[in-house]
Amino acid sequence: MNIMETTTQGRAGAVDMTHGGGGRAMVELIRNVFQRHLSNAILDAGNDGALIDVPRGRLVMSTDGHVVSPLFFPGGDIGCLAVHGTLNDVAMMGARPLYLTAGFIIEEGFALADLERIVASMARAAREAGVAIVTGDTKVVEKGKGDGVFITTTGLGVVAEGVEVGGDRARPEQVILLSGTIGDHGIAILSKRESLEFETEIISDTAALHGLVADMIEVAPSLSVLRDPTRGGLAATLNEIAHQSHVGMRLEESAIPLRADVKAACELLGLDPLYVANEGKLIAICNEDDAERLLAVMRAHPLGRDAARIGVVTADVNNLVQMRTGFGGTRLVDWLAGEQLPRIC
Amino acid sequence: MNIMETTTQGRAGAVDMTHGGGGRAMVELIRNVFQRHLSNAILDAGNDGALIDVPRGRLVMSTDGHVVSPLFFPGGDIGCLAVHGTLNDVAMMGARPLYLTAGFIIEEGFALADLERIVASMARAAREAGVAIVTGDTKVVEKGKGDGVFITTTGLGVVAEGVEVGGDRARPEQVILLSGTIGDHGIAILSKRESLEFETEIISDTAALHGLVADMIEVAPSLSVLRDPTRGGLAATLNEIAHQSHVGMRLEESAIPLRADVKAACELLGLDPLYVANEGKLIAICNEDDAERLLAVMRAHPLGRDAARIGVVTADVNNLVQMRTGFGGTRLVDWLAGEQLPRIC
Repeated sequence: MNIMETTTQGRAGAVDMTHGGGGRAMVELIRNVFQRHLSNAILDAGNDGALIDVPRGRLVMSTDGHVVSPLFFPGGDIGCLAVHGTLNDVAMMGARPLYLTAGFIIEEGFALADLERIVASMARAAREAGVAIVTGDTKVVEKGKGDGVFITTTGLGVVAEGVEVGGDRARPEQVILLSGTIGDHGIAILSKRESLEFETEIISDTAALHGLVADMIEVAPSLSVLRDPTRGGLAATLNEIAHQSHVGMRLEESAIPLRADVKAACELLGLDPLYVANEGKLIAICNEDDAERLLAVMRAHPLGRDAARIGVVTADVNNLVQMRTGFGGTRLVDWLAGEQLPRIC
Repeated sequence: MNIMETTTQGRAGAVDMTHGGGGRAMVELIRNVFQRHLSNAILDAGNDGALIDVPRGRLVMSTDGHVVSPLFFPGGDIGCLAVHGTLNDVAMMGARPLYLTAGFIIEEGFALADLERIVASMARAAREAGVAIVTGDTKVVEKGKGDGVFITTTGLGVVAEGVEVGGDRARPEQVILLSGTIGDHGIAILSKRESLEFETEIISDTAALHGLVADMIEVAPSLSVLRDPTRGGLAATLNEIAHQSHVGMRLEESAIPLRADVKAACELLGLDPLYVANEGKLIAICNEDDAERLLAVMRAHPLGRDAARIGVVTADVNNLVQMRTGFGGTRLVDWLAGEQLPRIC
């Protein structure tokens, strides 16, 4: 639903400045929308912070702002995306996510019904992922100073003994695995934004990956790097890792999973799927010895069905990511320099 | 500086959509602005999450979005406010803050120089408070879809053994203390917004209160409630506590510290100082036995110089906050029902 339409429902059905004022209207919004859907003992205590219990171990904290446009898209909405996105960042550190916080910045005039739909979606995503949203904050900005709703979530998780993953741990001759098809999220958003119609609807892959990660960690002690290729797609994420680890990479284009309809949409839109965002995929880097076992575990999980070995880590002082193309040539997979797909997450 | 002015500096001096795209421009922004000012070993690791060490104990997590307008105001800016605001929420749970995360939502065209000034201010505030900003996130939205910059911070802290504070712990006959003058922050913001000139400049009280809290906890084991009266001011915060604890309150108007210039400004603007926001003040509720000792400790701290005993907790099934006025009458200090001062924090 478009923001401009919602205001015609009048003040009663829309967020107004009083909802951010710290007075009775805000208390009622918190009770009727946030607490009603997100209820848990910690949140319901109603303090400005959450008192939490955490098992012993190293902790991981991660934060992510969500500004996706449109707010509702095939396969999800900003609510579940804000849960999945931050849970995944926690999981990519090898951690088991425990708690989330959520900060909302809402534009005056935003329909309360849409806000409630989004909060319900967050609640569902958190419940399915087995985490609690333990505290939050709501601000309201004047019409024209925001864009519907922005949601910043922060996650806290715990890393099991012995797990050591990080973007700086890739080593030459290690193997690069990818959990599934690329570009689904970005194309789902774009198809909605541009009102494109494809033969089959392309839906976002937005999903919480920590269950898959837990299975992987159990069988592959050599797992060195985990990362989800979100903004900037597979290309940006592999370049980040190459720089952090001071290595190069060599990919096989033909090995990278890509849905036929996403490929066709990319061709139509003039996009390179390597740069298109994903919200439910991960890259894993491990020793050759562990690769097949890891792939088998990934393929046994619903979110890793299409997992594939897509390349190897190389020794390269220039930290280049190269790819052998379908035609047998080699191309450089660089960072994207200019603008590509804004507001994708 | 006004957003409209900054764009005349041209693209080179302003944030553009590529800074949020996940590509090279974003990496450079993170390196040149965020890492340069906020540098610490955890942040510099450059992963999507922060691996942190936490001493054993109960933890507190709190999150707060900051949308203050204008971004720069007498006594502070959105940067230090975003640090203080969340540190204080953590401290009000009786916790010692350890780590912060920061999520930025930046409007296209925002001056890089202003962004840098804000990040430098955050860095200074965090350093002074002894906490590290360990991970962050940057999103850019199109011009007209944001308002300069919004910053959502999340804090993590640890609660010492034996400390039990919470908004639901006030009991009849306990004493209500306030750490200093009310309304300074709100009036500082408003004076800038309305271009009001007072004889003396009224500056925001924005400050990190956890040092004061640590001193207080040490001497007063009966400390039951701590809360900072931000949005909605003293009135909203006391009503919140009254509802959480199922008690009433009786205040003495003449005992509530209020600067003469803030009082004059409130009269001029038609505002009740009880509803005006503070960003460096706290309310404490404790047993009568501890009150004088606690007040002495508060007054010995630079942020509690003007601390005062402002009232008592009462048994009241209606959870009313009442106040004996300067004229000897009694008035109800209710929640604010309507809109008052938007975008104050």
